Amino acid sequence: MSEVCAAVIVAAGAGVRMRGGDKLFSVVAGRPLLAHTVAAFESCQEIDRVVLVISEKNLGRGKSLMNEENFKKVVNVCTGGPRRQDSVNCGLAALGPCDLVAVHDGGRPLVRPGMISRGLEAARKTGAAVPVVPLSDTIKEIDETGAITRTLDRSRLVAVQTPQVFRYDLLLRAHDEVAGDVTDDAAMVEALGHSVATFEGSNRNVKITTAEDLMLAEAYLH
Amino acid sequence: MSEVCAAVIVAAGAGVRMRGGDKLFSVVAGRPLLAHTVAAFESCQEIDRVVLVISEKNLGRGKSLMNEENFKKVVNVCTGGPRRQDSVNCGLAALGPCDLVAVHDGGRPLVRPGMISRGLEAARKTGAAVPVVPLSDTIKEIDETGAITRTLDRSRLVAVQTPQVFRYDLLLRAHDEVAGDVTDDAAMVEALGHSVATFEGSNRNVKITTAEDLMLAEAYLH
Repeated sequence: MSEVCAAVIVAAGAGVRMRGGDKLFSVVAGRPLLAHTVAAFESCQEIDRVVLVISEKNLGRGKSLMNEENFKKVVNVCTGGPRRQDSVNCGLAALGPCDLVAVHDGGRPLVRPGMISRGLEAARKTGAAVPVVPLSDTIKEIDETGAITRTLDRSRLVAVQTPQVFRYDLLLRAHDEVAGDVTDDAAMVEALGHSVATFEGSNRNVKITTAEDLMLAEAYLH
Repeated sequence: MSEVCAAVIVAAGAGVRMRGGDKLFSVVAGRPLLAHTVAAFESCQEIDRVVLVISEKNLGRGKSLMNEENFKKVVNVCTGGPRRQDSVNCGLAALGPCDLVAVHDGGRPLVRPGMISRGLEAARKTGAAVPVVPLSDTIKEIDETGAITRTLDRSRLVAVQTPQVFRYDLLLRAHDEVAGDVTDDAAMVEALGHSVATFEGSNRNVKITTAEDLMLAEAYLH
């Protein structure tokens, strides 16, 4: 039986900076940002099916967009939960069993099919792999007054993006067993004690949260 | 006697990604990036004088540019040293004594006069202040194989930009007494045991290192 690869695209964010996910419907280069995101997975040959997780408020709008775009691989558009990890969990349930699953932020429309393929390849070998880029700014730790407490050694630090790719059974187990708040899926798999590998991300693959990011997306997609 | 505020703009970088600082002469919106950077300090009312530190190779080009742009506040264009901190030290020497000094990356042309003023105000109170922005990506630590060893608690972490502003005497002492390699001036002042405050940076104020960053600068400056 051949390997089945799928994707969960999480666009349920209620982030203040994302105005409850509305920014995902901003039209850039003639197409809503969210359509650009899904299109990258639709175009990735190895991906068999896609689930889109969206906020209750945007469910109708999200479904309409998937229909208008006529995406063949989108098998389900479902609502998420209060935290990002709850939304991913909803997506995994809606997706059903497969071999590898890529979890991607709906707000990263600049991902390219090639990066998705690289992630699948890395996760095929290791079970869990995330795209990373070097940090360009110095990172410091601050206290509650805003004063600096420490400068971190940047040489060992990376910024983590999505798509994060996992063996489906491993990610499902992580979501079952890890209850605490996490910032990404890799952190859950790390909490299980399973090693998480890294693969090359891209500076282009930004998460669109601010007006500045939206300008960058405009510049890239036009 | 009134307070004297000055700036050292460091453009001596031999960074591979900056092609030895040549990218600073890329023309964006009709003006080399480095001219945009210096113009922000020229336009900042509180700034009295500016020193530009540049690589040996680009010295003639840098001097010509400052003349063409007719910047009134640029009192010196000098060459730097092997490390960024050596270049800042050359700049401090060329600048001579003053009350407050802002150290800025030549490769951050999107800084605005208002941010420089905010920095001067913060450093006037505390002696040392740096602009920071929240991190948008999750930060993880990796080992030499590229496997993830730890996810950092992002809530206490910030990305540090420039201009970093200091009392001149404090920064000079830091450069005299701290010999190790550092990533920024604040780290030297931290090493002296002096507290470093933070002020609000801007997502717009990116360091131009990659082709992506150059596109962003184009988008902003046009």
